[in-house]
Amino acid sequence: MTKPLNVTAVGSAIVDVIATVDDRFLLANSVAKGVMTLVDEHRAQTLHAALPRPKEIAGGSAANTMAGLASLGARGAFLGKVKHDRLGELFASDMSAIGVRYHTKKAEGGPGTGCCLIAVTPEGERSMSTYLGANLEFSESDLDGRDIEEAEVLYIEGYLWDAPLAREACLKAIAIAKHAGTKVAFTISDPFVAGRYRQDFLEMMSGRNFDILFANEEEAKSLFEVEAFDDALQRVHDWGGIGALTRSEKGCVIARDGEVHVIDAAPVARVVDTTGAGDQFAAGFLYGLTKGKPLSDCGRLGTIAAAEVISHLGARPETSLKPLAAQAGLL
Amino acid sequence: MTKPLNVTAVGSAIVDVIATVDDRFLLANSVAKGVMTLVDEHRAQTLHAALPRPKEIAGGSAANTMAGLASLGARGAFLGKVKHDRLGELFASDMSAIGVRYHTKKAEGGPGTGCCLIAVTPEGERSMSTYLGANLEFSESDLDGRDIEEAEVLYIEGYLWDAPLAREACLKAIAIAKHAGTKVAFTISDPFVAGRYRQDFLEMMSGRNFDILFANEEEAKSLFEVEAFDDALQRVHDWGGIGALTRSEKGCVIARDGEVHVIDAAPVARVVDTTGAGDQFAAGFLYGLTKGKPLSDCGRLGTIAAAEVISHLGARPETSLKPLAAQAGLL
Repeated sequence: MTKPLNVTAVGSAIVDVIATVDDRFLLANSVAKGVMTLVDEHRAQTLHAALPRPKEIAGGSAANTMAGLASLGARGAFLGKVKHDRLGELFASDMSAIGVRYHTKKAEGGPGTGCCLIAVTPEGERSMSTYLGANLEFSESDLDGRDIEEAEVLYIEGYLWDAPLAREACLKAIAIAKHAGTKVAFTISDPFVAGRYRQDFLEMMSGRNFDILFANEEEAKSLFEVEAFDDALQRVHDWGGIGALTRSEKGCVIARDGEVHVIDAAPVARVVDTTGAGDQFAAGFLYGLTKGKPLSDCGRLGTIAAAEVISHLGARPETSLKPLAAQAGLL
Repeated sequence: MTKPLNVTAVGSAIVDVIATVDDRFLLANSVAKGVMTLVDEHRAQTLHAALPRPKEIAGGSAANTMAGLASLGARGAFLGKVKHDRLGELFASDMSAIGVRYHTKKAEGGPGTGCCLIAVTPEGERSMSTYLGANLEFSESDLDGRDIEEAEVLYIEGYLWDAPLAREACLKAIAIAKHAGTKVAFTISDPFVAGRYRQDFLEMMSGRNFDILFANEEEAKSLFEVEAFDDALQRVHDWGGIGALTRSEKGCVIARDGEVHVIDAAPVARVVDTTGAGDQFAAGFLYGLTKGKPLSDCGRLGTIAAAEVISHLGARPETSLKPLAAQAGLL
C-alpha cells in the first residue's frame, strides 16, 4: 500500500438503540414485527423513551465495515453526518475510540442524529425502526477531499441513495476518487434499494463509476431482475469490475473478468444474529484487497470476518479480527 | 447434432442385487456396514444366496448414466463386459429395454457377470459388496469403433482404471474418439480412484485426452490434493477443458476457460437415497451438451436429473426425465 489510508467510507451515521421486549410491547407501541420501518423524529423519540433499559452502540452499515477494518489493523476514515447532540457525540467518540479518522462537521440545527431502534423479542427476532435524521443533511460540502485522495479505496453505501443530497455527495466523492486513483467500491445495501435505483446503479456500473461491487444474493438478483443466482453472477462477470457476491451459509462467489472463485462460508459454532454479516464481509474483503492479496484470499478474509460477527449479538466484531485472520494464514 | 448417437459410454456392467436386512444379517454374514467392499466370486455367490428376497436390477455407474440419457430421449450405446449367464442376460435385456445400443460380446467362460450386493438396513444405510467379475476381462478387442465414431461424446468411467485390461481399452477408445472428432468425457467415479491413479489422470488432462471432466467435490479435492473447493475449481478452470464439479446440496459449478457457472441444486421434497446422483447429473449435463445448450443449461439439466434419482431408492430414473426437463424450459 502506498497511500496513507486503506479505506475511506461514505455512509449513514447511525446509533443502534437495542432493547429486549416482549410481543405486548410491539403491539402497545405499534412496532411491525421482524421488519425494518423508516420512522420520523417524533416517533423515534417516543419509541426511544419507551424502550426498557436500551443499550446504545454506534452502528450504520459502512461505519460497521470501518470498525471491522480497524479490527484487522487497517487505517481508515469515515464520512457521515450526525447532529451535535448526545447520540452524535456517542457516534463520534466510538469512531475515534476504534481509531477511524472522523471529521465530518456535526450539524448544529435540524434533525437529530440518526438512530435505529431495535426491539428484540425473546425468540431473537429483531423489529427495527430507523430514523435517518441528520443523514438526510449530508451534502457535498461535507466531503473532505483529502480523506478520499489519501485512500486506496472509497467505499460507498447504497442506503445513501434514499437521501438525495447524500447521493449527490457520493457522485462528487466518486469524481474525486477517479481523479486521485482511488478505487471505488459500492455496496447495494438492500434488495429494495436495488429495486428503487436499479437504472441509476446499472448506468454507474456500465460507466465504470464503480470498480468493486458488493451485493448479497437477493440484492444481486433484484438489481439484474433475474431469478437464478448464476444469471446474476454472469452479469457481474460480464461487467468487468470485481464482483463480491455473498450467499449466507453458501459462502461467497468472487468474479473478475475471466476469474471466478467459489469460497465456502467459514465455520460457525452457532449463528446468533446475522446482523452485520455483509458489513464485516466487506471489511475482510477490502482489507485483503488493499493489502494486495489474491482475490480468493480476499474472499476468505471476508467469510472469516462475517463468521465472527454472526456468532454474537451486534453488528461489529467483539473479538479482534486480526488474530483470526492470522490463524487462517491470511495476513 | 450431426452424428447418429449422442453418447457412447465405456463402463462397468454391473447388476445391483438389493435386499432389506437387519444388523444381525450383516454380523452373521461378515458384511462391513455402510461402506463398499470388493469381493471375490465365491463370497459374492455365498452372499447372493443368503440375501432374503433380493431384487435384481441393471446398474453400473456409466450404464446408469446411459439410462438417464435414454430417459431424456437421447440416443446412445454402451460398451462393457458381462458373462453369458443369468445376470448377464438380465443386464443386456435391461439395456435394450431402455433403447441403448449394447453389442459387447458376452464372455463364454471365466468369471461371472459383475454384481453389487446391496444390503439395506432399516435406517436406510447401504452396505455394498462389489464383485467386478467379467468386467476384468473387458479389453481392446471388445471395442466397437463404429459406436465411438458415431457418437458426439465418448463417456468413460474412472472405476475401469482398477481393471488393467479395461484401462488399456479406454486409452484405445480415446484414440479412436480423437481421430473421429468425438469429444471425450471422463468421470473420476470415486475419491479413492482419484488417489490411486492421480498421476495418470493429471497427465491425461494436461495431454488433453479428456475434453470434459466430471468430479464431485471430494473427488476433485483428492485429484488435486487440495483442501478448499475453490482451489480444485481453479485447477479445473486453468486446465482449459469443460469441468463439471458437483457439490451435493450445494449444486454444481461448471467451468470452461473464462466462464464459470454456479448452479443451485434443484429442489427435492425428501432425499431418500443419494445413490446415482452423480450418474444422473452426468446424464443431464451430457444431454444438454450434445444438444448444443449453453453450459449453464447443461448444469441445470444435470441438477434436475440428479434431483429425480435421489428422491427414491435406486440409481436410475423412475420418472421420465424428458417432461421434467421440458417443465423447467430446458428442452
